[in-house]
Amino acid sequence: MAPKPLDYESLNENVKKVQYAVRGELYLRASELQKEGKRIIFTNVGNPHALGQKPLTFPRQVVALCQAPFLLDDPNVGLMFPADAIARAKYYLSLTSGGLGAYSDSRGMPGIRKEVAEFIERRDGYPSDPEHIFLTDGASKGVMQLLNTIIRGEGDGILVPVPQYPLYSAAISLFGGSLVPYYLEETANWGLDINDLRHAVAEARAKGITVRAMVIINPGNPTGQCLSEANLREILRFCYQENLALLGDEVYQQNIYQDERPFISARKVLLDMGPPISKEVQLVSFHTVSKGYWGECGQRGGYFEMTNIPPKTVDEIYKVASVSLSPNVPAQIFMGLMVNPPKPGDISYDQFVREGKGILESLRRRARLMTDGFNSCRNVVCNFTEGAMYSFPQIRLPPKAIEAAKRLGKVPDVFYCLKLLEATGISTVPGSGFGQKEGVFHLRTTILPAEEEMPAIMSSFKKFNDEFMEQYEDHTGYSRM
Amino acid sequence: MAPKPLDYESLNENVKKVQYAVRGELYLRASELQKEGKRIIFTNVGNPHALGQKPLTFPRQVVALCQAPFLLDDPNVGLMFPADAIARAKYYLSLTSGGLGAYSDSRGMPGIRKEVAEFIERRDGYPSDPEHIFLTDGASKGVMQLLNTIIRGEGDGILVPVPQYPLYSAAISLFGGSLVPYYLEETANWGLDINDLRHAVAEARAKGITVRAMVIINPGNPTGQCLSEANLREILRFCYQENLALLGDEVYQQNIYQDERPFISARKVLLDMGPPISKEVQLVSFHTVSKGYWGECGQRGGYFEMTNIPPKTVDEIYKVASVSLSPNVPAQIFMGLMVNPPKPGDISYDQFVREGKGILESLRRRARLMTDGFNSCRNVVCNFTEGAMYSFPQIRLPPKAIEAAKRLGKVPDVFYCLKLLEATGISTVPGSGFGQKEGVFHLRTTILPAEEEMPAIMSSFKKFNDEFMEQYEDHTGYSRM
Repeated sequence: MAPKPLDYESLNENVKKVQYAVRGELYLRASELQKEGKRIIFTNVGNPHALGQKPLTFPRQVVALCQAPFLLDDPNVGLMFPADAIARAKYYLSLTSGGLGAYSDSRGMPGIRKEVAEFIERRDGYPSDPEHIFLTDGASKGVMQLLNTIIRGEGDGILVPVPQYPLYSAAISLFGGSLVPYYLEETANWGLDINDLRHAVAEARAKGITVRAMVIINPGNPTGQCLSEANLREILRFCYQENLALLGDEVYQQNIYQDERPFISARKVLLDMGPPISKEVQLVSFHTVSKGYWGECGQRGGYFEMTNIPPKTVDEIYKVASVSLSPNVPAQIFMGLMVNPPKPGDISYDQFVREGKGILESLRRRARLMTDGFNSCRNVVCNFTEGAMYSFPQIRLPPKAIEAAKRLGKVPDVFYCLKLLEATGISTVPGSGFGQKEGVFHLRTTILPAEEEMPAIMSSFKKFNDEFMEQYEDHTGYSRM
Repeated sequence: MAPKPLDYESLNENVKKVQYAVRGELYLRASELQKEGKRIIFTNVGNPHALGQKPLTFPRQVVALCQAPFLLDDPNVGLMFPADAIARAKYYLSLTSGGLGAYSDSRGMPGIRKEVAEFIERRDGYPSDPEHIFLTDGASKGVMQLLNTIIRGEGDGILVPVPQYPLYSAAISLFGGSLVPYYLEETANWGLDINDLRHAVAEARAKGITVRAMVIINPGNPTGQCLSEANLREILRFCYQENLALLGDEVYQQNIYQDERPFISARKVLLDMGPPISKEVQLVSFHTVSKGYWGECGQRGGYFEMTNIPPKTVDEIYKVASVSLSPNVPAQIFMGLMVNPPKPGDISYDQFVREGKGILESLRRRARLMTDGFNSCRNVVCNFTEGAMYSFPQIRLPPKAIEAAKRLGKVPDVFYCLKLLEATGISTVPGSGFGQKEGVFHLRTTILPAEEEMPAIMSSFKKFNDEFMEQYEDHTGYSRM
């Protein structure tokens, strides 16, 4: 009998090709173990509130009032909400066309896109046009829409850093394009070498691939590095020379844990460079309410901003966004609040700053704790997390461990991470899910477990790792790779 | 110079092919006029809150508390929230893994999928499995994901009713498939004739198209008809015979304005039919919090339920859903509340029922007012809106009007709707956006304007229409088509 339309063998091959390790085998096994009653520490995904991070009070007050606008008429409202939250809720409700229950414009509410534009202008020193800003249900949705707009078929290549966040490989598979990897150099603190980029493009072209766009993730996911201004300038010049659009994933721009390389946006560097580059390179930059010190992942709010994109293309992107009617409205308000937070003198200012600073300072300490913890383990080396939310240690697996994995039909780092999960409850993502050089193994963990739990987690990791190494190391002849 | 990657000429052709009239030329013109200060009545999209429908109080109380969980510890909370809303908020927060700010499972929270399964079981009389229910950011996102899973290329056809809701044509274009139209019969109250279906499939096959799935919209959008049980049975038998998956768009299942044909789900009819059909036909059904008497469009909440879909396919759908991490969490809670509303005896029950009934009864009166209003106009005939939220009158345009439109390079119904907009501020969607037979013209309007404004709107429409007809009718020789 013929297979049915939704039988596995009948499905769109591009769907089958998609891989998404962040919620892959390890996550599924962790979910099973959790159901069986085991305590799991989910460090597979940057989901701060799931690991105990408290939401910022002020934005939640504003959105709660917007959800329940009848509270604004309640004489007791002042007992439970500060006046600035009440005023802000009224302001956002005035921007909607019927409260949070009405679809907004498919690009998001004009008033909030204006707040985003003003934020970008303050950040970069150049005006930004709200008409070139689209609000989205999280940054991922925006990235997917842009890739879908660019990719025409498998002859179209997208340059993606490796190791990479697998949203990119997954979306490129789904839309039937070709991922063109460029490798970040672990020994150079995950830096990006322009000669490698040139090499990657030349190799792809030799295979008949038209390289159309380049992705940068700054700060890096999973690698945590912050790009320097000089490096960004090189990248932009390269995009100009090679006629590539640049997709700048800047969702971790608030998450910086060192002072040598503060975040600088690709857009600022582009506009600083002046013509012709500043007028020619097509740039789309992405941001979110899910990261930073907000961590409002579950709300699904993001935006993308387009620079040097012609109006006819903006119209096409608008048209396709319209098919899903509108991004969710509550998250639009979170975005407005994120880019336009309480100001000095506002009633809620001190609390807001205290909460945000507390989170960021703790993340900075945790980044350090984790890096040091990993580096104290046998056969583990780890670059410092300069930014973002992840630690990406290299695990130097002994040949015997690699053989043991192969016997079980597992990729070696998957084998290691599964054993780690079973032994400690720590749910990580194997490095192979992000791509890496042949024969080199990593894992990715977030730096998000509660600070007070961090020492116990790192010592539980160390105990597992060192025993694992003890078990698989060949004490007669093993030498470090 | 070579075009740049995001220049219009470089874009994915499937993106360019997408058409989405609900937010097309008419909507854009209406937005412009609004900016210029004209009062616009947006009846282009089923967006009840934008036209003054008030949100239901209880669900908003629950979600507001979930957004601001610190209120639950406030001694004054009982002054502003009823005890059942407080209890329900605590319950939902206990289902999350860190409140509304944490990503949920990519399929949605298990506890809410269980509530949905229980609702489906009560509705249909057959148990439903929460593992086959996925929560989504509105029903549209689910429809798009399923179409993306099915469509492998332009040789794959999807049967879509015409007139249709343009989500279907847009998504099929975007994913590079072929739309295979089947025509609903206006003179038979927009009924569906199985012989026409057979004819449509045979014609598509003759062109080399593999027809893989069939879409039904019940109650119909834009056409408002409710499918009878007998008709659904014929459709399911047809899908069985022709090896088609059935996509059941049932987002208007609460919106029924007559008593002869209550809503019956495709799933109930399927399971009532017994084997082999009940075990074989692959069905995916869609629902939403945006319609019904909820109208919570801006929250973007929906679900789809899969029947007879093999586990390996469910895994693929889960994997692709994971790339976007999770549907927004607040809307998941709205969905839980919709499928599991207050019960008799609950503190909020009476108010909840009163609010919901008030909305539905008013919609029923508005459906009647609008149909009668259109039928009182010159050269306008309109079927009664049995369900959903739209009225879809046929406008019999005189030849002179058609000529005038052609001289301006406009489709005739676009010409009519633009003139209507300029004259009255009523923003509709031309019938051509939904597809129709050659030479027949319609418009779609929602039945959502406030009931008290309805008489004025209909008389403003009538005045415009009758003057338009007066202007363009050839009084010497025009005869009705």
